Amino acid sequence: MYGSIRIEPNLHSKPLPNLDENLGFGKLFTNHMFMMDYEEGQGWHDPRIIPYGPISHDPAAMVFHYGQAVFEGMKAFRTENDEVVLFRPDQNAKRLNRSSERLSIPQMDEEFVVRAIQELVRVDAAWVPKKKGSSLYIRPFIIATEAILGVRPSMKYSFIIIMSPVDAYYDEGLQPINILVESYYARSVQGGTGNAKVAGNYAASLKAQTLAKEHNCAQVLWLDAIEKKYLEEVGSMNVFFKINGEVVTPSLSGSILEGITRGSIIHLLKEWGISVSERKISIDDIVQAHADGTLEEAFGTGTAAVVSPIGSLLWNGTPMVVNHGEIGQLVERLYTTITGIQCGKLPDTFDWLLKV
Amino acid sequence: MYGSIRIEPNLHSKPLPNLDENLGFGKLFTNHMFMMDYEEGQGWHDPRIIPYGPISHDPAAMVFHYGQAVFEGMKAFRTENDEVVLFRPDQNAKRLNRSSERLSIPQMDEEFVVRAIQELVRVDAAWVPKKKGSSLYIRPFIIATEAILGVRPSMKYSFIIIMSPVDAYYDEGLQPINILVESYYARSVQGGTGNAKVAGNYAASLKAQTLAKEHNCAQVLWLDAIEKKYLEEVGSMNVFFKINGEVVTPSLSGSILEGITRGSIIHLLKEWGISVSERKISIDDIVQAHADGTLEEAFGTGTAAVVSPIGSLLWNGTPMVVNHGEIGQLVERLYTTITGIQCGKLPDTFDWLLKV
Repeated sequence: MYGSIRIEPNLHSKPLPNLDENLGFGKLFTNHMFMMDYEEGQGWHDPRIIPYGPISHDPAAMVFHYGQAVFEGMKAFRTENDEVVLFRPDQNAKRLNRSSERLSIPQMDEEFVVRAIQELVRVDAAWVPKKKGSSLYIRPFIIATEAILGVRPSMKYSFIIIMSPVDAYYDEGLQPINILVESYYARSVQGGTGNAKVAGNYAASLKAQTLAKEHNCAQVLWLDAIEKKYLEEVGSMNVFFKINGEVVTPSLSGSILEGITRGSIIHLLKEWGISVSERKISIDDIVQAHADGTLEEAFGTGTAAVVSPIGSLLWNGTPMVVNHGEIGQLVERLYTTITGIQCGKLPDTFDWLLKV
Repeated sequence: MYGSIRIEPNLHSKPLPNLDENLGFGKLFTNHMFMMDYEEGQGWHDPRIIPYGPISHDPAAMVFHYGQAVFEGMKAFRTENDEVVLFRPDQNAKRLNRSSERLSIPQMDEEFVVRAIQELVRVDAAWVPKKKGSSLYIRPFIIATEAILGVRPSMKYSFIIIMSPVDAYYDEGLQPINILVESYYARSVQGGTGNAKVAGNYAASLKAQTLAKEHNCAQVLWLDAIEKKYLEEVGSMNVFFKINGEVVTPSLSGSILEGITRGSIIHLLKEWGISVSERKISIDDIVQAHADGTLEEAFGTGTAAVVSPIGSLLWNGTPMVVNHGEIGQLVERLYTTITGIQCGKLPDTFDWLLKV
């Protein structure tokens, strides 16, 4: 499919940085990137691994004007046995195609996408850090490159994969965060692009994120855009609550991103025999549970942080403190289990890892 | 403000094409472009007019991932006296700042933006076509260029202006179009980015546009995302109806783009003593008016087409034919007046033109 991947080694490679030092998130990139192009009539073609470096486009390229761009986020881990593994990459390839479909971007063979990621990670395998909690963040993305100002789907695209060694999201393990419940700005709506990993969704979220920071909150909890009542997601994470022993998370309404970590967590909870339900959750449900003392835990889930305990929710100017602002037992167990599987400390019972 | 504009002439200029021939829309670009950069701490700096050509960015540049990009669309005209004029460029500069504000992009001095456009048009003035209905389309846009994968407002931007000679939107003057009333997909919602000229809005609209084409319609008429009931806008145009002698257009609800042509048309109608009202209009209102024979005219308005008569609206599988599918008198008068002012055939009574 698409021909074999040509490899052009980087003759001006940067020396490998000290991966035990502070890496930050998405600031430092490896020596190579993957690229493949699409042209109407020709399809996807010329898959290649080339030196990491600037890409050049006509200023009329459609991505600059009409935001026709989708992406994925995933990680490679170095296990305790010094193997390099990917976490559920088939799920990312599937979602990439779903996002593309929503934006009228041509589909790609999912097995090929996984193979392209594997080959690129192999080439820069030395960049996969070993430090506890660190990983190689992988960013596949597709951009519309045709140079024309008419509003219609582009007839040319580039699929690119870049990689960045990143630290654990929280330096000192898990740490509860404050969340602002946002009732003015909207991230998405049914019939929109909220359930796709689309560039424009993120641009639309920046303003509310700034507002959150001003309120000393790390992220925003989005309410549905229609009734401003039902919970959607937290910043770039899905959200879960443990109420009176039951774990609940908003059902996929059409405007919520179907997180891969979200799916993994639901799977784990079911395996553990913990009651978990995907349903509409109103902010009033949370206020009520907080008031009557049944709101036991709250957390966000995503590739970057895995799970992120919520210490308090700021709603209508009043903070609702969750679990005394401390890390809950369930969050701790989920974090330990998923990161344990990822770093090879725990058995890969569900066949989630793919060796590179 | 921002220093003087440096001009670097294109030493490899393309020869001027025959501007009387078929130009299409946004396919052919002039020999120069304007560029100015922003960096946190330094502000907007280094305004320059340089040869039109590819721009080079790190593959991690935020515009490729998070769609932080806004734009404007406007035109320069060659008048009957061979002067080159811009149509209400101050309005575009204002709206550019409003769009930027929504996406956390730093503001720009509006007078400077107009001056930059003027200077660029002066440099490539030979590219302003004279043929009836043709013009030089001007596309100012801002993109986030910082190379980092964290989701937050970029600290670096480029402001770029490119220009393309374009034909009249309809080769043979006005021509009624068919419109599909869209009830599944959503373009925007209150609290979203629909009232800003933001790249992601257009990506989100592509899918419905493809659906429209499949139904032999030129554009989609968007309904509000909440009740799927109230009219918003048509494709990339605002929409107007003449019902029983009164002209109505959806009021700016927060999810509708504030069109500059829309504003000009409301202004003209008031000057002419024609009753015009900005209000919530439901699709049921239109169905009712069509049924009782009071739906006299319908049209879209925008920079590209000026006004675009709607010949029929496809709603729930049934077409509602407007004015026997013919061009209405009001549409005709509005088109003749605005294009007349733009090409200097009619006096510029409202001070809408700016000489270059």
